[in-house]
Amino acid sequence: MPNESDMTMGAATAPEAARRIFRSGVVRPTCGVSRGYAQANMIMLPREYAYDFLLFAQRNPKPCPILEVLDEGSPFPSIARGCDIRTDIPLYRVWENGEAVDTVDDVTDLWSSHDDLVTFLIGCSFTFEFPLMDAGIPMRHIAAGRNVPMYDTSIPCVSAGRFSATMVVSMRGIQPDRVADAVRISGYYPRVHGTPVQIGHPESIGIADMEHPDYGDPPILERNDVPVFWACGVTPQAAVMSSKPAFAITHAPGHMLITDVPDSDYMV
Amino acid sequence: MPNESDMTMGAATAPEAARRIFRSGVVRPTCGVSRGYAQANMIMLPREYAYDFLLFAQRNPKPCPILEVLDEGSPFPSIARGCDIRTDIPLYRVWENGEAVDTVDDVTDLWSSHDDLVTFLIGCSFTFEFPLMDAGIPMRHIAAGRNVPMYDTSIPCVSAGRFSATMVVSMRGIQPDRVADAVRISGYYPRVHGTPVQIGHPESIGIADMEHPDYGDPPILERNDVPVFWACGVTPQAAVMSSKPAFAITHAPGHMLITDVPDSDYMV
Repeated sequence: MPNESDMTMGAATAPEAARRIFRSGVVRPTCGVSRGYAQANMIMLPREYAYDFLLFAQRNPKPCPILEVLDEGSPFPSIARGCDIRTDIPLYRVWENGEAVDTVDDVTDLWSSHDDLVTFLIGCSFTFEFPLMDAGIPMRHIAAGRNVPMYDTSIPCVSAGRFSATMVVSMRGIQPDRVADAVRISGYYPRVHGTPVQIGHPESIGIADMEHPDYGDPPILERNDVPVFWACGVTPQAAVMSSKPAFAITHAPGHMLITDVPDSDYMV
Repeated sequence: MPNESDMTMGAATAPEAARRIFRSGVVRPTCGVSRGYAQANMIMLPREYAYDFLLFAQRNPKPCPILEVLDEGSPFPSIARGCDIRTDIPLYRVWENGEAVDTVDDVTDLWSSHDDLVTFLIGCSFTFEFPLMDAGIPMRHIAAGRNVPMYDTSIPCVSAGRFSATMVVSMRGIQPDRVADAVRISGYYPRVHGTPVQIGHPESIGIADMEHPDYGDPPILERNDVPVFWACGVTPQAAVMSSKPAFAITHAPGHMLITDVPDSDYMV
């Protein structure tokens, strides 16, 4: 049940305030929150998996652009002042042997029993949604107060050690006369997925049923909207499912870390 | 002593031909060779150091932009067809406990006694020298047939596990009215060090004596030339010196891997 902090949270909420609200237990997707500040996907893995995962990210920069890797056992990111990564994401998923075994809003307890976790923060396409909106390209899921739809695809990632996956993508419906602008503007932000990976042909990347996304909320497509697909930072969760590390914690799709980094810092 | 292949080697030599010539034992810096193709710095480390080094590179993308990480024990890069990384670089340095103990033109034998080496290929500023020359900005070391001058600096890198270093830079003298163009053009190539880290004030980054570079050949500065400094892929060698891994192999400064990747692939 949303509380007052939740009701008033939105584009104008400062990143530190947003993190404090999520720390207090509020759960909601972060689309549309804290205009102008980059958001991040998150995965925590035991140290023994860290090299393979970092290499996986290096080999797949489109879905997994690394923003920061925390030192082993440290929960304090430098890209978010005063943040404790164990509490400040609205919702976490806990994984054992590739299965999602729990969904929680705080993972402090789990760090007591896993003292060698390495936390990876990965760019998120929510970062370029405000620049798209500023250019007059509506984000239909934000206008409707929904999470973005995300889909598993048939696009193979490059494997690294024990990690392999097919890419996860997010989808936004864009009017035909603005697709080129959406490509151009998102292309300025390669650290947060950059240009789309597919435009207009979901079936060509293995998406059979757009109405039923694998993560997030169902899509909103207005008349003539072209479905445009961007590489998505949920891809590490697909890698966890297919590669089955003994233990992992991720954010829940759409429930991101809000950082202190201005979007413009990730613009080229 | 240069042989015939060496004498005829230059901007027009295809990457595969250049690698074949270096494999045959020819030793020379690669500045000015194979116009239009990216060059790469190289470091090989035992598997136990691979995570710390990959993290060091991730945290220091300006001096250490990773182009490719080879699988453990594999000498075959995907960015250079038919290449064997143990033979196709003109000159290698061998390191033990942070000391350069040998300089050789082939490291195949060393791979027999070290079967878990991980090879990292890192972007090189030679890649943007042709675009600078195409824009009418002379590269004085290439015109003179010399290696570029490189310097240790006081600029700290971000540490990662066992690796720390201060940054190494390369220097090019640029006429005052072309400095902004050199910044703009190199800025299109973030994967090969991108924009300069310092312009015109060597003492501000701890370079006391420009005439005596720490690596490469002495500088050529013409009247009014502004010294412009770019982050350099020799920085991993500074990290080896300060962090003293038990074993490492690197390229010798200025003696790079010539890849099959067109410069334009690394342009944003």
